[in-house]
Amino acid sequence: MKFLIEGEEEIGSPSLDGFIDSNKDLLRCDAVVVSDTAMFAKGRPSICYGLRGLAYVEITVTGTDRDLHSGTFGGAVANPANALVTMLDTLKDAKGRIKVKGFYDNVARMTAAERRAFAKLPHSDARFKKSIGAPALQGESGYSTLERIWTRPTLDINGIWSGFTGIGAKTVIPAVAKAKVSMRLVPNQTPAEIVRKLTQHLRSVAPKSVQVEVHDLHGGHAWVTNRDRPSLQAASRAMQRAFGRKAVFVREGGSIPVVATFDKMLRVPCVLMGFGLQDDNLHAPNEKIDLDQFYRGIEAAAYLMEELGEVGIRHAKTKPRTARGR
Amino acid sequence: MKFLIEGEEEIGSPSLDGFIDSNKDLLRCDAVVVSDTAMFAKGRPSICYGLRGLAYVEITVTGTDRDLHSGTFGGAVANPANALVTMLDTLKDAKGRIKVKGFYDNVARMTAAERRAFAKLPHSDARFKKSIGAPALQGESGYSTLERIWTRPTLDINGIWSGFTGIGAKTVIPAVAKAKVSMRLVPNQTPAEIVRKLTQHLRSVAPKSVQVEVHDLHGGHAWVTNRDRPSLQAASRAMQRAFGRKAVFVREGGSIPVVATFDKMLRVPCVLMGFGLQDDNLHAPNEKIDLDQFYRGIEAAAYLMEELGEVGIRHAKTKPRTARGR
Repeated sequence: MKFLIEGEEEIGSPSLDGFIDSNKDLLRCDAVVVSDTAMFAKGRPSICYGLRGLAYVEITVTGTDRDLHSGTFGGAVANPANALVTMLDTLKDAKGRIKVKGFYDNVARMTAAERRAFAKLPHSDARFKKSIGAPALQGESGYSTLERIWTRPTLDINGIWSGFTGIGAKTVIPAVAKAKVSMRLVPNQTPAEIVRKLTQHLRSVAPKSVQVEVHDLHGGHAWVTNRDRPSLQAASRAMQRAFGRKAVFVREGGSIPVVATFDKMLRVPCVLMGFGLQDDNLHAPNEKIDLDQFYRGIEAAAYLMEELGEVGIRHAKTKPRTARGR
Repeated sequence: MKFLIEGEEEIGSPSLDGFIDSNKDLLRCDAVVVSDTAMFAKGRPSICYGLRGLAYVEITVTGTDRDLHSGTFGGAVANPANALVTMLDTLKDAKGRIKVKGFYDNVARMTAAERRAFAKLPHSDARFKKSIGAPALQGESGYSTLERIWTRPTLDINGIWSGFTGIGAKTVIPAVAKAKVSMRLVPNQTPAEIVRKLTQHLRSVAPKSVQVEVHDLHGGHAWVTNRDRPSLQAASRAMQRAFGRKAVFVREGGSIPVVATFDKMLRVPCVLMGFGLQDDNLHAPNEKIDLDQFYRGIEAAAYLMEELGEVGIRHAKTKPRTARGR
């Protein structure tokens, strides 16, 4: 057994791909196991066979060479905050479709079998809505909540800032406005392609009274594999033995870019067997791990070794259904 | 001579109107002189006979009860930052017209004589653009730069903030997004009317997946008077004596709410005779006052006393052309 431990994931793992590429012999293996996903629900084990990718940019819109008094100048000069707002509003329509030209060109659609399987999972929109305190759910027309999160690309403003943000009123026309925008990607979109298309779009909609820069901060490939692969089936049995209930197959909306890297560079199956729960408050205050999940997870990891030994994963050389463009 | 000194202007003068209203006898006078405006240019004295008003609000858009991970939830919930951007983008069209219903209902249009007078002033768009480092000028179609600043209402985002604004990437769907938006008003718009219309507009365009609050932070009435009033003509002569050049009549884009208050409560002419310059960097780093302007300004103030004595301003009881709605 080989352990690969890195501490740079939250800053985009800048060193990891290069390390793996340079150490393929050292890392040679029969399967990779990653425990960085959540179970479908407490007591409902799941195996994750798909992840979304990510493209993350920072947009800077600059107007004049300094902040201006909105009385002395207002009405005669561009306001970069207004310009940024107008530009960002061209990115999505009211039905949740992303309007960047060519954005959906390479999107791999989910299969009919997946759609049927997702519909059978015990998901409740009402419970989901309540769990996050949302007044109403909102997403792309024609897809269920799980389909939207697991199989469809997104575009979200992760941060925006400009001008005066303190208490009270200041009548300023800001010189600069900035936004952080990320897109969750699905197979077979690539971060480079999507950043290029977004940048072209933003330049085409920018008024000539401002300057626009798009900085590519961070990206990762989406990944999906075939749930019938022997290693995933072995993981399913290990989960069932530990949790006493049949595992369901799920995808996730988050990104674990190294999974696509393992897939591409080591050419072995990746098993995503995680023990988190949806209410663990990931990346948020009061993040926690459920102790019962933790102890049963340890058992599941031990059963997995046994199950993998049983199937002899070396012979699992079926052509993987990975939809990521190579 | 009576001096009225207050130190709360930059926080909206919360005490001043009440003080004036309670002390009309103490403040009884023949004319009010305010030196809080700029000259048209260095060596080019000017008398200001019109100011814009102001309506300033803070908008809060709330989605879920906490920030969410954009992978785990992205695509299935509203993003308040995206919603705010979409809402703000409905406020103005590409030609600089404000699309809030009824926004222009009470706008007093400039006169043909004003338009001719403004066109004769030695203003250069190229010089103006260069002085603020703008890539290009931008404003409402059909109006010159001076007309836009002096006679037309505006809508500007003075501040916007939401989500992650630090260095690098954080994949968060913010729970809250906020903006500060102000509108420069012209006679006969009123701050209360405009805030009401803006609030109605924002509620009408808000998706039901978010909650919207509009908080009225601060406002002031626009003001315009007749440049032929004897007190303004007296000020014009005083300026000519101090600066050696005929004064031009101008309006300003900024707001001095107390001028409308004097007009309304004391019912006397207001003379705006100021000595600032456009490059004084008001409200900005390296704010300065030109010493030559300062010393000539002292002379002009002395000449003004003499000129006002000559005309006997008490008889200046022509009906003022004040366009502010009372």
